[in-house]
Amino acid sequence: MVPLQQALVEIRRGAEEILVESELIKKLETGKPLRIKAGFDPTAPDLHLGHTVLLNKLKQFQDLGHEILFLIGDFTGMIGDPTGKNITRSPLTTEQVEENAKSYQEQVFKILDPVKTTVVFNSHWMNKLTPADMIRLASNHTVARMLERDDFDKRYKSGQPIAIHEFLYPLIQGYDSVELNADVELGGTDQKFNLLMGRELQKAYGKPQQSVLTMPILEGLDGVQKMSKSLNNYIAINDSPKDIFGKIMSISDDLMWRYIDLLSFRSLEQIKQWRDSVNAGQNPIEIKKTFAQEIVTRFHSKEEGLQAREGFDNQFKKGQIPDDLAEITLDASDKGLGIANVLKQAGLTTSTSEAFRMIKQGAVKIDSVKIDDKNLVLMASEQHIIQVGKRKFAKVTMA
Amino acid sequence: MVPLQQALVEIRRGAEEILVESELIKKLETGKPLRIKAGFDPTAPDLHLGHTVLLNKLKQFQDLGHEILFLIGDFTGMIGDPTGKNITRSPLTTEQVEENAKSYQEQVFKILDPVKTTVVFNSHWMNKLTPADMIRLASNHTVARMLERDDFDKRYKSGQPIAIHEFLYPLIQGYDSVELNADVELGGTDQKFNLLMGRELQKAYGKPQQSVLTMPILEGLDGVQKMSKSLNNYIAINDSPKDIFGKIMSISDDLMWRYIDLLSFRSLEQIKQWRDSVNAGQNPIEIKKTFAQEIVTRFHSKEEGLQAREGFDNQFKKGQIPDDLAEITLDASDKGLGIANVLKQAGLTTSTSEAFRMIKQGAVKIDSVKIDDKNLVLMASEQHIIQVGKRKFAKVTMA
Repeated sequence: MVPLQQALVEIRRGAEEILVESELIKKLETGKPLRIKAGFDPTAPDLHLGHTVLLNKLKQFQDLGHEILFLIGDFTGMIGDPTGKNITRSPLTTEQVEENAKSYQEQVFKILDPVKTTVVFNSHWMNKLTPADMIRLASNHTVARMLERDDFDKRYKSGQPIAIHEFLYPLIQGYDSVELNADVELGGTDQKFNLLMGRELQKAYGKPQQSVLTMPILEGLDGVQKMSKSLNNYIAINDSPKDIFGKIMSISDDLMWRYIDLLSFRSLEQIKQWRDSVNAGQNPIEIKKTFAQEIVTRFHSKEEGLQAREGFDNQFKKGQIPDDLAEITLDASDKGLGIANVLKQAGLTTSTSEAFRMIKQGAVKIDSVKIDDKNLVLMASEQHIIQVGKRKFAKVTMA
Repeated sequence: MVPLQQALVEIRRGAEEILVESELIKKLETGKPLRIKAGFDPTAPDLHLGHTVLLNKLKQFQDLGHEILFLIGDFTGMIGDPTGKNITRSPLTTEQVEENAKSYQEQVFKILDPVKTTVVFNSHWMNKLTPADMIRLASNHTVARMLERDDFDKRYKSGQPIAIHEFLYPLIQGYDSVELNADVELGGTDQKFNLLMGRELQKAYGKPQQSVLTMPILEGLDGVQKMSKSLNNYIAINDSPKDIFGKIMSISDDLMWRYIDLLSFRSLEQIKQWRDSVNAGQNPIEIKKTFAQEIVTRFHSKEEGLQAREGFDNQFKKGQIPDDLAEITLDASDKGLGIANVLKQAGLTTSTSEAFRMIKQGAVKIDSVKIDDKNLVLMASEQHIIQVGKRKFAKVTMA
């Protein structure tokens, strides 16, 4: 068994907050396997690296000998949005829930050990509650405290309607912890209010209170907004090896460190060494490749991780793109910037007329693809490696 | 059948508000019997004249040929106050509810015709709702709109806690109208918010909307606070003929008119005549007696009404208490006022020593009862008719 101090270092790694840590330590000291709860939406899952921040933490607990309660919140999912205002939340059928659960498991078990994971559905106990039980549940919290929750507070103050059943949903999520006798609940920082609700309700129902551990929310490829399917800034765990590798290689060096901190399983010492070497002036590209290979290996195989790296290297070797190519940021303004001006401003041609000539000669490549449209316009937020002839390269970011 | 215009005059009589009257008229025009709902607490009933303001209106609808749905709100009564803060709202058992319902009917059927009254219990349909049904119900109203309700508004603004289940109770009351297909709901003015909830929910559930009729809240014997058992300012419909008669005779002349307006079944013309005669200088005491007799007759019998009036008259004749005896208010201070000082200050004796002498002689009566305790002290809020010898009377109020 892992000594307590070592286990704590693992558990704290990457965590935003542990409430209350002294309680969690006492639970760990008992040496008994703890019941670790995490809740997931019952909607069709397409898990991305953002989700895995939490899943990895679950996996750590699992490796430390604890039991994972993988909760699928199908009860509310099968109700949908009763106000009918949120059309993306139409009620799910039992079949859809089952199908989604299956898809969840296929993906989740790439990280979690199925043997140490119990998949549970909250409809199982929620549907058994009587109307009187629901009222008793609702009696455990006040309107004022509920309105303290960030999103409710904002909506209430800005005059946006909050339907009363929305106050019931956090209570139901909290009640799941009562039914599950959870010792610890994990969630993103945006779930803190709901996770603490579990603590409160367990107390109200005369049960030991769970500890709460929050994990940071992973930013998407843009480095700004949270990783999400709808923002198309994500790396799905079902993405091909080449896509995973390529997407990771495309992120900024700053974001690379964030990803490494939250996603890499390398030792903290190893990561510190990497940082030190980059601070000492080393180009981070090899570290990025090593990290990208780790992630591909995790969701595919060791062999595919290696292949993805080689493939990436070969592609660039063929194009003879130098590792240390110039990075240039150009002003795209609202209308974008024509390709001739891009070439000129990036110093790849001396004039726009030379630029047009080079395009006509077929000497201009964007991301290794030859272009022939001289009216091409690059818009803000585009990022490309642009090549003119055999020797001139630039990594251009439109801002 | 009563013509519509005449029916409307009856319906409007004493009513505070009809929402929406044009809709109600349309319903009445169909000539079909309407379903008239009124809800009552399932707590042990001791009906007083305050309750009868509403019951009389139900009776009018009944006399016009409509069906009364006498709803006993036992569902929430059997839950009690789940926060445990309101100890007077401990959960009722099924047996208690049944017993209370029986007691209700015994009292209510002194006014309503049992044949045209359907007694219903909302636990009957509420207990059948699923948790999902409860959530759908809660989705029909917003937090902001609920906080507009007077009492919630005050509590929220003053920082007093409102438990979330309290938001569910008005929804449940409104949902009763959905289940009952109520055409009209009656209630006190303090119930307006909840009555309108019925309208809203019927619409949300795709049903025709009920009309709402509110009745004023009757003041108690003090003429200030609402009549209630806990304030001990009430006339119970189970009070003895003598008590009912005596209590009505004790109210102020101003309050008499309010009671007559809300409780008498006399024609509006008759009541107007009474007012005119008093405005012209007539002593209202005979009107008060006639009204008191009407109420005793209603809850006992014609004979007992007559007897109560005769009893009252005789009591005063025997004691030779004049109808127009002097009314005096004395300062009782915190410690009360000794009887000798009372007699002197009321002008019934010239000095306290004369007062003591008269008590010793057995010449002093309080409320027709001879007293012999010269240390008797009258406290604030006591009110008595005090007599010294055969001729001297005063109605003394201690303040």
